[in-house]
Amino acid sequence: MYSFAPLDRRVAIIDLGSNTARLMIAQYTQDRVFKITDEVSRRVRLGEGIAVDGRLRSAARSRALDAVRMFKSFCDAQDIDHILPVATAAVRDAGNGVGFLEEIARGTGLNFRLISGEEEAFYSTVGVINSLGLFDGIILDVGGGSAEIGLVRDGAFAKGASTPFGTVRTTETYFPGPEVTTGQTKRLDADIDQALEDIDWLKARGTVPIAGVGGVVRALVRIDRMERKYPLGLVHGYELKRRRLEKLIGRIASMPVSERSRRIPGLQKEREDIILAGAMIVASVMRKTGARKLTVSGQGLREGLFFEEAFKPSSRPNSIGRLRRFTILNLARLYGYEGAHTGHVARLSLSMYDQLQETHGYGKSEREYLWAAAMLHDIGTVIDYYDHHKHSAYIILNAGLPGFDHREIVIIAWLCLNHRRGKPDFSRYQTLLKKEDRSMVYRLSSLLRLSEYLDRSRSQIVEDVRLETGSRKVRMKVVPRDGRDVTVELSEARNRVQLFEECFGRRLAIELDRTGYPDRPDRNGGP
Amino acid sequence: MYSFAPLDRRVAIIDLGSNTARLMIAQYTQDRVFKITDEVSRRVRLGEGIAVDGRLRSAARSRALDAVRMFKSFCDAQDIDHILPVATAAVRDAGNGVGFLEEIARGTGLNFRLISGEEEAFYSTVGVINSLGLFDGIILDVGGGSAEIGLVRDGAFAKGASTPFGTVRTTETYFPGPEVTTGQTKRLDADIDQALEDIDWLKARGTVPIAGVGGVVRALVRIDRMERKYPLGLVHGYELKRRRLEKLIGRIASMPVSERSRRIPGLQKEREDIILAGAMIVASVMRKTGARKLTVSGQGLREGLFFEEAFKPSSRPNSIGRLRRFTILNLARLYGYEGAHTGHVARLSLSMYDQLQETHGYGKSEREYLWAAAMLHDIGTVIDYYDHHKHSAYIILNAGLPGFDHREIVIIAWLCLNHRRGKPDFSRYQTLLKKEDRSMVYRLSSLLRLSEYLDRSRSQIVEDVRLETGSRKVRMKVVPRDGRDVTVELSEARNRVQLFEECFGRRLAIELDRTGYPDRPDRNGGP
Repeated sequence: MYSFAPLDRRVAIIDLGSNTARLMIAQYTQDRVFKITDEVSRRVRLGEGIAVDGRLRSAARSRALDAVRMFKSFCDAQDIDHILPVATAAVRDAGNGVGFLEEIARGTGLNFRLISGEEEAFYSTVGVINSLGLFDGIILDVGGGSAEIGLVRDGAFAKGASTPFGTVRTTETYFPGPEVTTGQTKRLDADIDQALEDIDWLKARGTVPIAGVGGVVRALVRIDRMERKYPLGLVHGYELKRRRLEKLIGRIASMPVSERSRRIPGLQKEREDIILAGAMIVASVMRKTGARKLTVSGQGLREGLFFEEAFKPSSRPNSIGRLRRFTILNLARLYGYEGAHTGHVARLSLSMYDQLQETHGYGKSEREYLWAAAMLHDIGTVIDYYDHHKHSAYIILNAGLPGFDHREIVIIAWLCLNHRRGKPDFSRYQTLLKKEDRSMVYRLSSLLRLSEYLDRSRSQIVEDVRLETGSRKVRMKVVPRDGRDVTVELSEARNRVQLFEECFGRRLAIELDRTGYPDRPDRNGGP
Repeated sequence: MYSFAPLDRRVAIIDLGSNTARLMIAQYTQDRVFKITDEVSRRVRLGEGIAVDGRLRSAARSRALDAVRMFKSFCDAQDIDHILPVATAAVRDAGNGVGFLEEIARGTGLNFRLISGEEEAFYSTVGVINSLGLFDGIILDVGGGSAEIGLVRDGAFAKGASTPFGTVRTTETYFPGPEVTTGQTKRLDADIDQALEDIDWLKARGTVPIAGVGGVVRALVRIDRMERKYPLGLVHGYELKRRRLEKLIGRIASMPVSERSRRIPGLQKEREDIILAGAMIVASVMRKTGARKLTVSGQGLREGLFFEEAFKPSSRPNSIGRLRRFTILNLARLYGYEGAHTGHVARLSLSMYDQLQETHGYGKSEREYLWAAAMLHDIGTVIDYYDHHKHSAYIILNAGLPGFDHREIVIIAWLCLNHRRGKPDFSRYQTLLKKEDRSMVYRLSSLLRLSEYLDRSRSQIVEDVRLETGSRKVRMKVVPRDGRDVTVELSEARNRVQLFEECFGRRLAIELDRTGYPDRPDRNGGP
């Protein structure tokens, strides 16, 4: 059976930033399932010129008001339950900011909430905690008017600081001309270092993870992944190396602003002016904390506001395990494809996994991959029943799995791809995998495949399996539920033993377990 | 807004053939929208040995009964509203066929309908008419126990004939050994020719299209597309060339049966015995009608039964135009993404298209591609909002568009891919396109993109556009609905003129139309 989770509520978040105004729409069912269904952004450069006299300019206000008016029309047409509009650094810091919000209220009826630097860091952190699975570390959110730094401890926001090094403001202050001089970059580096020095809890922590949020961070990913010929299109979860970032900064600084987008593949024209300041802020914070890489979060402030709105703190994921579990269940529910079947395949797969523990020697993570793939193996049916194993892999690789890193996403997608037959090729993602992952994926795939065919009728008539593992042979005894006829399941599973035998180096004999049901013959043979 | 069409009814079709037993489940809303959501097949070889003594063998009956029992469990677990079980050639032709159906009824409670050869041809034809868009021509359905030939005229079944050349039966009769001799193939060719001679309406028709249905036809596609490195994974709509088929027959006949699947990429082990007979039957019918190519239909008997059940004849597509329209609407409804927006983008696009008629000189087909892409451009949001233009293209390329050929599917997918920005690469599908398609697609894409951004707020506040086309410049006057403020739409569309200007070789000026609303200033300028 094929059905979708009804997403009965719709919330719109409007985020009026210094560079960009953004509208995000999420649909959800409280505490259960959600999906981001729209995002519209307009580059309004509201913070333009604010560095000069501390006031929002008339042209900038007019651009921002137009954008908000459009967002309002958008929301009106979409039957939104609730609009949460917030304004950040540019409005906060401008002498005429509050007056501008009153102007917006008169013009659109929307009452913007002006949030403080610390609140901004808080919501970003909530967004990142609930999507990246960073539970101890530093979060850096680079906006147009400011850059927020948050400290996360035990999965909760601990401290936050706001620095004025937003990309628009920094570019205007430090790089006003068509080219950049060494003196200018040195001055900026020194000033950032000075500002970071004042944040006493921000010390070199070496192994502490650092997460990056914001438009300029995503722009850096687009450049870096093109250079690396990165096989995945995902921004969320991307790992940006400091060494590569510093090389890129050197390249950008060496060329005139107007040539940057033409000469650097992946760099959008509209960001070619602010990209240098943004990259330097990121690199400075990484140097300060000693981080060699930064994990990019595609979710931040807006998603943080959404999570606070839609998910009660009690049911919010508050550990990496819970986030990962929620991610898988959210996707499984969204494409609600036969929960009874997928849940049963998961149980059978894990039963085999646990009984083979001594043979494979894998740990908790691998067990979780197998569970996740079992839950998601059929979601591709939303695209088409034929080749749905390929479509399941496609959805996972393209929608991502918040809380899982890119290697893990590839592993889970590949498991889904393998659930039916053969050994489909996945070599284009090999650079994201460890050497030993290949054999691990095939071993887990063989269990998933056997479980899938042991529920061929999708009616959960195979209760469980009992494995006896020898050095050259594994006997799998199939326990039918309530004495049901599992002839077909036995024969289908027997047709799928090849991968198991190849991966585990043992012959696999699948037999009917007669202990509970001495009277039932296994009509199609068996030893 | 993002919602799915509720598919409130579920029907299961069970088709007990001579080679394979198949279960197909479709969900639908009467007369509106449907989706095939499951298919399970078991190779039961029910017709095995029937050529010898005209009776179903005990082992074959037992395999078939197991499969039907499994299908019944499957249906019970899926909450199916209605099960339609039918039996075809093997049961029909066997002396003990009716007795076997009684045995099945006792064992499973399912009362199979035994359909005649002509009914089989009829339902196949209904399936093909409603999915391939073949409205005049020949339909060949090759099963395990028989091969049906149907004549279609004016979109309706006109005549049908059944021949005994099913793949299983033919293989047993003509190719019983591990290798094939020239004498054997000559004898089969002669016997098929003789049988076809008796079908008086089946003459060489040269240009009359011919459609092929059945498992063995699909198996031939899998081989052929691998050899050609065909860029699409679709079976439905694939064109099989007679010249290539005859070469393949030569190759297959030259090797021992047991080596075929190893030496012919794409050929499944379980079909290596019957593939030769199947290929020869197809080739003979093509020779007889003079057809140089055969278009493969992924849908046939089962889908024909489904269409008869779920769609009243009055609302059934009965012309190629209606089928194509239904296909697009079905997909748009399935992923019911903002009907008001997509419909509006379609209207704006077609308005531009019609007003530019003299400039582009395209016809009805191109207009239909533009409409189809406008209706489908956002369906990819079901996978993820980010990169949804790519996902829309992916869904179209993978789910297919019944009634459109592969070239047209590529065109529509590419249009969807282009609806946002840039000129995304689609060169891997180039072999399916004509040389002139590239510039046509970019021209249509430029109209779609402008329309998309003229409804940036998704609230349909741009009523229409009026174009004045000069030799070097096009003026587009934007008419707002009820005097609404379209400032943002004008500026968004102005940011997307580049592709249009490049493709049409004219500058594009987008202005507010003031004729209806003389008092409204165009606040962001314009001439």
